[in-house]
Amino acid sequence: MTAPPAPDVVRSAYAQLVVTDLARARWFWADVLGLHVQYEDAHVLCLRGTDELTHHSLVLRTGDRAALDHLAYRVRTPSDVDRAEEFFRARGRPVRRVPAGDGTHGVGDAVRVVDPLGFPVEFFHGIARAERHIQRYDLRHGAEMARLDHFNLCTPDIPAAYVHYTSLGFGCSETIEGDEHELYAAWMYRKQTVHDVAFTGGAGPRLHHVGFATHESPQLLRIADILGSLHKEGHIERGPGRHGVSNACYLYLRDPDGHRVEIYTSDYYTGDPDHETYRWNVHDDRRRDFWGHAVIDSWYKEAVPVLDLDGVPQPITEAVLDESAARVGADGLG
Amino acid sequence: MTAPPAPDVVRSAYAQLVVTDLARARWFWADVLGLHVQYEDAHVLCLRGTDELTHHSLVLRTGDRAALDHLAYRVRTPSDVDRAEEFFRARGRPVRRVPAGDGTHGVGDAVRVVDPLGFPVEFFHGIARAERHIQRYDLRHGAEMARLDHFNLCTPDIPAAYVHYTSLGFGCSETIEGDEHELYAAWMYRKQTVHDVAFTGGAGPRLHHVGFATHESPQLLRIADILGSLHKEGHIERGPGRHGVSNACYLYLRDPDGHRVEIYTSDYYTGDPDHETYRWNVHDDRRRDFWGHAVIDSWYKEAVPVLDLDGVPQPITEAVLDESAARVGADGLG
Amino acid sequence: MTAPPAPDVVRSAYAQLVVTDLARARWFWADVLGLHVQYEDAHVLCLRGTDELTHHSLVLRTGDRAALDHLAYRVRTPSDVDRAEEFFRARGRPVRRVPAGDGTHGVGDAVRVVDPLGFPVEFFHGIARAERHIQRYDLRHGAEMARLDHFNLCTPDIPAAYVHYTSLGFGCSETIEGDEHELYAAWMYRKQTVHDVAFTGGAGPRLHHVGFATHESPQLLRIADILGSLHKEGHIERGPGRHGVSNACYLYLRDPDGHRVEIYTSDYYTGDPDHETYRWNVHDDRRRDFWGHAVIDSWYKEAVPVLDLDGVPQPITEAVLDESAARVGADGLG
Amino acid sequence: MTAPPAPDVVRSAYAQLVVTDLARARWFWADVLGLHVQYEDAHVLCLRGTDELTHHSLVLRTGDRAALDHLAYRVRTPSDVDRAEEFFRARGRPVRRVPAGDGTHGVGDAVRVVDPLGFPVEFFHGIARAERHIQRYDLRHGAEMARLDHFNLCTPDIPAAYVHYTSLGFGCSETIEGDEHELYAAWMYRKQTVHDVAFTGGAGPRLHHVGFATHESPQLLRIADILGSLHKEGHIERGPGRHGVSNACYLYLRDPDGHRVEIYTSDYYTGDPDHETYRWNVHDDRRRDFWGHAVIDSWYKEAVPVLDLDGVPQPITEAVLDESAARVGADGLG
Repeated sequence: MTAPPAPDVVRSAYAQLVVTDLARARWFWADVLGLHVQYEDAHVLCLRGTDELTHHSLVLRTGDRAALDHLAYRVRTPSDVDRAEEFFRARGRPVRRVPAGDGTHGVGDAVRVVDPLGFPVEFFHGIARAERHIQRYDLRHGAEMARLDHFNLCTPDIPAAYVHYTSLGFGCSETIEGDEHELYAAWMYRKQTVHDVAFTGGAGPRLHHVGFATHESPQLLRIADILGSLHKEGHIERGPGRHGVSNACYLYLRDPDGHRVEIYTSDYYTGDPDHETYRWNVHDDRRRDFWGHAVIDSWYKEAVPVLDLDGVPQPITEAVLDESAARVGADGLG
Repeated sequence: MTAPPAPDVVRSAYAQLVVTDLARARWFWADVLGLHVQYEDAHVLCLRGTDELTHHSLVLRTGDRAALDHLAYRVRTPSDVDRAEEFFRARGRPVRRVPAGDGTHGVGDAVRVVDPLGFPVEFFHGIARAERHIQRYDLRHGAEMARLDHFNLCTPDIPAAYVHYTSLGFGCSETIEGDEHELYAAWMYRKQTVHDVAFTGGAGPRLHHVGFATHESPQLLRIADILGSLHKEGHIERGPGRHGVSNACYLYLRDPDGHRVEIYTSDYYTGDPDHETYRWNVHDDRRRDFWGHAVIDSWYKEAVPVLDLDGVPQPITEAVLDESAARVGADGLG
Repeated sequence: MTAPPAPDVVRSAYAQLVVTDLARARWFWADVLGLHVQYEDAHVLCLRGTDELTHHSLVLRTGDRAALDHLAYRVRTPSDVDRAEEFFRARGRPVRRVPAGDGTHGVGDAVRVVDPLGFPVEFFHGIARAERHIQRYDLRHGAEMARLDHFNLCTPDIPAAYVHYTSLGFGCSETIEGDEHELYAAWMYRKQTVHDVAFTGGAGPRLHHVGFATHESPQLLRIADILGSLHKEGHIERGPGRHGVSNACYLYLRDPDGHRVEIYTSDYYTGDPDHETYRWNVHDDRRRDFWGHAVIDSWYKEAVPVLDLDGVPQPITEAVLDESAARVGADGLG
Repeated sequence: MTAPPAPDVVRSAYAQLVVTDLARARWFWADVLGLHVQYEDAHVLCLRGTDELTHHSLVLRTGDRAALDHLAYRVRTPSDVDRAEEFFRARGRPVRRVPAGDGTHGVGDAVRVVDPLGFPVEFFHGIARAERHIQRYDLRHGAEMARLDHFNLCTPDIPAAYVHYTSLGFGCSETIEGDEHELYAAWMYRKQTVHDVAFTGGAGPRLHHVGFATHESPQLLRIADILGSLHKEGHIERGPGRHGVSNACYLYLRDPDGHRVEIYTSDYYTGDPDHETYRWNVHDDRRRDFWGHAVIDSWYKEAVPVLDLDGVPQPITEAVLDESAARVGADGLG
């Protein structure tokens, strides 16, 4: 029997995070970072960037501890939702159908799964439209995030992540590899950018960060300056800097619950059919920071747990490569 | 009998222009604007941007007068080249197969057609790879153009252009329309940006401009400054400015033969399956310049002729809407 | 008898403008442009930029028609106020002493004069301090104007303006000159920038514009984008562009009463004792716009009247060079 | 007997550094950073920035080991050179008159002293003019440094440095102070910027860095990117970042001999007569980096020795506050 075909994934669409204090989270994500509040009630906040024409790219819901509730990918057609269901059922993964109205506000008929890496992932097609803000410069403030760009996931088994996402039809733009081509990290895409999802070696499943794109680099300096002005510089974890991988400029912030967000700009087009993977050696000190700066420890070590379909934290497995890779240093596998 | 299916077009890939003095053209496009010379001989120059991984996105060849030799789209597979041939043969258009080695340097098996709008267009799949310059900041200079973004074509019949490109599977991101929704201009895409091709109403077929993307807006100011320094400010035709349509920043330059190039940055993602067309009213003075500046006359009136498959200039038809649209003003139809 | 010595002028300090609708002016200058409201009552608004440590650099007061109430220069010591009084009395100009509390809010003991060019000018030393906003990025918005940079004055007799300001100890950084070195425009400074005051040939005395400095050029694009978003692009008169003279980037806006403001950035240091005047020929089309763009007519023709010490509009004299300079074109003297 | 008056210092003018390999230094400062080579011979290189109208702001001469040969300040008049001589003779410091032609290429009559802090300092008035490059955007490359901005000196006794430079007529824009207002660092100016010279506590006399101003922040990211491209990221020591003190954006690089250069942009005007000192508490983690990032150890510990008037390295005294300030941490006094 042949495996059922993969759903046609369009792009990474939104992350739903559990936060412990919604007002505090609203301050950070809406007031300071500048995401637009598309919907809110006592327990939920739906947020989107300046260029997003769908209902949200980030959902914050209240809960007892910081966690990833689920990631979501948009698929091309309604029947791709069915295809996603079959795809994960055939792999024996937990699957739950979520009719429109039962799940996340604004999202149509969906399916949620726990994928082979242990992450809670939703696939949906329908989503409410939102008013066009693309040219509402009068509303822009903070980091002026344009759109969700990617998810970054901690997983102890990067090759397994690579295989799973390849089976879902993702291309691979870049990797970090050892001298024997052992895989330390991978950046994978459906839309025509460097990634929709990336994997950082480490204990997992955990969410490392969500990445939002801005149009230009001055926004990265600006939001760092604003946090300094507010004497909230403790929310700045790393950067601004230039990545080796992806060539994008980055700034990593931590929200009041410790969720990490990357403000990200200026990667490159990957839409050609024969786009080749670019491979970084793990000993090239420019791979994580093109300017050669050391990556601070918290960036490698800290990440948030993920929930299963019933909202229970998934068990975390340590990274298997940890010991043998001691000399590697900055990539967190040493 | 059903019409043959359209080829799967990936993106606008390159323009081949006729220039009258290759050394002078090289000065403008390579020395000043900063495109990388991938190949050159006495009659031809193949150029590409910093992020392009294929052989060229602009070809300049010598000839008696400035003209568009042909536009080229990359298609997804080798059999899409065949599909393109069948598609245009079924429409009774001039078609010529160009085997690898007989056509443009670096390009594989291709088909060239004169499309229903009268433009010479090539479809190809195979193209030579080029060394990765994405992170060669040491080589960047001039406008630091990252990649070809789009073609802009003058045609007297915008609705016909819209219909033809729709039949080729292009989506429509934005339009300029009259009060009765008569179509004045349209921006159409295959890759996930605002456009691969746009149509400006006017006598045609003529090439209005080729558009190259940069990463950020400072590059637009920089290349204008460099031209001022060289006392070559006459090459600056319009801008820098912000478009209403596309929301991109723009700068229009004219090369020594009068070919127009747009340096373009910061449009938006259009890859979602239900991406809606955004419609500008022709009376909104922000449509062409979001800051409300008048468009200078030469921008509306001047464009270069296009050649047929034998290198003979195509006859030019005046725009049919000219008279009735006298009140429209800036969009060149008045 | 020797002429009394000139006061030691530190810098251009503030302009007091008459506006016809204070609420509308507040919307433009504070809400949109982002100047900080340091003081306001029913008739007066005192505004300052992000880097200014003194009470205001712009005062708006209500009145029947748009006009310049007065310009103000800060002098080095309290006795320089006396020196200013003597300097202008000796020249037979109208002079009025304004004790602290009787004049503009926040300003100490001052003297007001009508200078030989017909402009109402105040000299003061003492001014109230203001809270430091230099690092309040959280408060920045709009054009993020850092500080008043200069005044630009329309006067029919540029050589007379040059002589007068030279007698006040100003240096001359740049000029526009005819083929016989006849003076068309001059930029003069006390602080170590290109100018505190400049003269544009034309009917006068009239105020051409006040110039505010921003730190970087993205702010110029940003405020233009915001005005476009608000569909208030009619307030954008000219630019963004690069000046030939001063090498600064510029954007000219008009307030609801027609007062012109320049957003200005990145000129150069002029503080060396032997700093030489840089002379532009009036036929160099880069002098007003380094990118060679034509200056629009309103920029040359329109300016606001100035008041005398009793609030009566000063009579306006046409420019004497008008006729003979017809061929000059863009510099408004043709 | 009254002390002789201080010379009227205009600004920090140039630094003369000893480098061990002139070709390697030329690669770094001219080819990569983009300073213009105004003069060179087998032993000396005179360099200047894009906006500098005098002969040089950096002189590199060959020698056995990296050192500061001397700092130089420009004074207002020729007689201020005499005044400088008398000023330091009266203080019993080593003084040597250097007639034009005997000293540094392009510099007129000068006096060199070893100041009370142990630094070799030159005062001069006359200096050769240089061709205006302010608008030669075609020549700009690398970091596009506009002009020398300041010197930063390591000295064990900050209060003594403050007193000495105050006696020379310098103002103090900012300080870092302990809870009892003990002085940890000071920024002092003559020109109307935050500083011409600053003092960093530590063993001294040593040269911490020379600072060059650029017009905007993108240049800081650009030069870091170029160094990454060349796989010379080891020359990047710290930043880009935003200072708390001065509010400027910074990037610290090390040249092939270990000389440190700061690329610096966007501080603020300090020219008003009553400009107040802004005081940072040493425990505010934003003082050195407004984004709260830790300062790397080498930045605090490493600096280059200085020579006396005979070219002999000056003895170095350890900082006296070291032990007691152990808890202070990042400011190098702990």
